[in-house]
Amino acid sequence: MRKTLLAATAVAVAAFSSSALAEKYTLRLAETWGPNSPILGETTKHFEDMVEKMSAGRIDVRIDSANKHKAPFGIFDMVRNGQYDMGHTASYYYKGSIPNAMYFTTVPFGMLAPEQYAWFYYGGGMELMQKVYEPFGLLSFPGGNTGNQMGGWFNKEINSLEDLKGLKMRTPGFAGEVMAELGVSVTNLPPGELYTALDRGTIDALEWVAPALDFPMGFHQIAKYYYSGWQEPGAEVQFLINQKTWNKLPEDLQEILRVAMRTAAYDMYAKSTNDSADAWNRMQKDYPEVTHKVFPPEVIEALRETTHRLLEEEAEKDPLAREIITSIREYLAGVRKWTNISDKAYLNSVADQ
Amino acid sequence: MRKTLLAATAVAVAAFSSSALAEKYTLRLAETWGPNSPILGETTKHFEDMVEKMSAGRIDVRIDSANKHKAPFGIFDMVRNGQYDMGHTASYYYKGSIPNAMYFTTVPFGMLAPEQYAWFYYGGGMELMQKVYEPFGLLSFPGGNTGNQMGGWFNKEINSLEDLKGLKMRTPGFAGEVMAELGVSVTNLPPGELYTALDRGTIDALEWVAPALDFPMGFHQIAKYYYSGWQEPGAEVQFLINQKTWNKLPEDLQEILRVAMRTAAYDMYAKSTNDSADAWNRMQKDYPEVTHKVFPPEVIEALRETTHRLLEEEAEKDPLAREIITSIREYLAGVRKWTNISDKAYLNSVADQ
Repeated sequence: MRKTLLAATAVAVAAFSSSALAEKYTLRLAETWGPNSPILGETTKHFEDMVEKMSAGRIDVRIDSANKHKAPFGIFDMVRNGQYDMGHTASYYYKGSIPNAMYFTTVPFGMLAPEQYAWFYYGGGMELMQKVYEPFGLLSFPGGNTGNQMGGWFNKEINSLEDLKGLKMRTPGFAGEVMAELGVSVTNLPPGELYTALDRGTIDALEWVAPALDFPMGFHQIAKYYYSGWQEPGAEVQFLINQKTWNKLPEDLQEILRVAMRTAAYDMYAKSTNDSADAWNRMQKDYPEVTHKVFPPEVIEALRETTHRLLEEEAEKDPLAREIITSIREYLAGVRKWTNISDKAYLNSVADQ
Repeated sequence: MRKTLLAATAVAVAAFSSSALAEKYTLRLAETWGPNSPILGETTKHFEDMVEKMSAGRIDVRIDSANKHKAPFGIFDMVRNGQYDMGHTASYYYKGSIPNAMYFTTVPFGMLAPEQYAWFYYGGGMELMQKVYEPFGLLSFPGGNTGNQMGGWFNKEINSLEDLKGLKMRTPGFAGEVMAELGVSVTNLPPGELYTALDRGTIDALEWVAPALDFPMGFHQIAKYYYSGWQEPGAEVQFLINQKTWNKLPEDLQEILRVAMRTAAYDMYAKSTNDSADAWNRMQKDYPEVTHKVFPPEVIEALRETTHRLLEEEAEKDPLAREIITSIREYLAGVRKWTNISDKAYLNSVADQ
């Protein structure tokens, strides 16, 4: 009996493979990043590689960088309307079209990357993110973390709230809104103009990412104060997939995509950690005049209070915003107590400095 | 021309699928853990689930827990001799058979989980781990992180080195050797006897894991001082695979296994973070007499000095041990500088406390 059953199974599998399993799919992916973008662009290539190998070529991922599609901040729309099957971008670029997506990239004074992954996968974050994207016919998944972002490059020390008043700074998004409330003259400039603007004094300060991506931009050659951040403690980018594309795929390929996105995201965090460590060590060695600083308590407190006030304003406007902000606040309160007796206690009292 | 080429490709794919792709494989996996072990056992089940879905059933993973194979610390041998195809265990359990494997679980005063993943995947750690396991016909991969482990439960405060002398403590492995050098009377007891031994005063202290796994053991009902750790800042368990099993698999299934192990490992770290946060918050609420403590500087310094001395002794015995210890030391020195200006600065000066 047993042998017959096994033989029958084998035949069924072979028949299945030669029809459904052998079908090939092309997935067109648009990314916000330019071609060969370090860390971010490596993540989509890494995803492509895993998917093509795991599916034995049944999925062909074709990546278009921003130089091709010309719409770095149009990813949400292009995937939504089916122009692309997938996107790799950051939720908080779409504050205008889909304001509640913002919270899934990062929140000022929020979670570190490991805390945030715990929230996404075991604390209800994924379900909330899907609730936000579902009405647009999209699935969304974590797409990689930059790690803790720095507060930015300043050409003078910030010793008080007074020092922020009138300061011309490039800092976009929600953090920019908070800074503006404290009297900072917030501007946004395209990445390609930042170095020159800082060099010529058109701006006094700017916030970019972290050493891994800041170092190639050369800001350390101009501004010597490098501040720790408050605004993006663990910035997660996102994969978006058109729901109709997803529904066409057999279950095994859906799982291959899901797991490849998950691994690509985690790996981006590990790569960011590696590259920022490497870049910061090189900066310290080759540019000893670069000085690490932390904002003084009165600046931090003003930023914190303003952040909480603006978040409360968002929550009052929309029940779903309230639900997301509450989930993040409550999860953070719990997980941070654990971080404090583990990693924080270790870094402060135990670790080699 | 184009159409003909596409048609030919489709035929080739179908033919390939009905032969190589349709073949089924059973992978027998032995784990160190008992049945339904929280976090650790969830990791192998999660791995099994991903592999079976991604391979559309072409791989059948069969997990034997310790109650079945009766050899929780024999995983290395059973996978090596082909009794099992795979194992899920911790490298540092095999100090006797394969001493250099120890460093791939954790090192006292070493890296936090995100730093260690960066080292494994982008800092040469994987290559060194493979160098250690290769002579035994094994492949090894990170298998999940518990997060930062606590220093243990103590029934009295440790205020000086003097307080450690003669203290009866359950703490196994390398950390136990370090503790013994400071005059601690180190014992090892099976997990099932720990609660009673602590309750009856047979031991004065014990080190287990972190709140997620400590809470179910009930130690907080007996000992009220819960110390932050120094000995396992990011303990990674391992997947082992027999090289001959691996070689029999087609490339797509190898990649499916590789990626599923990688995701299962990262997910275990996220799950540990979530569950330890949850358990620590419940303990604080229901057992307000439980007090978090940090060892005083003189104890930390003695532990650090002893750790470095014992590691140096290992390095002197064996060039490969020297290579691994040096790689860890150098990587840690670089990456910790980055952690200090990012997560540490954030936790100390910015974050809600």
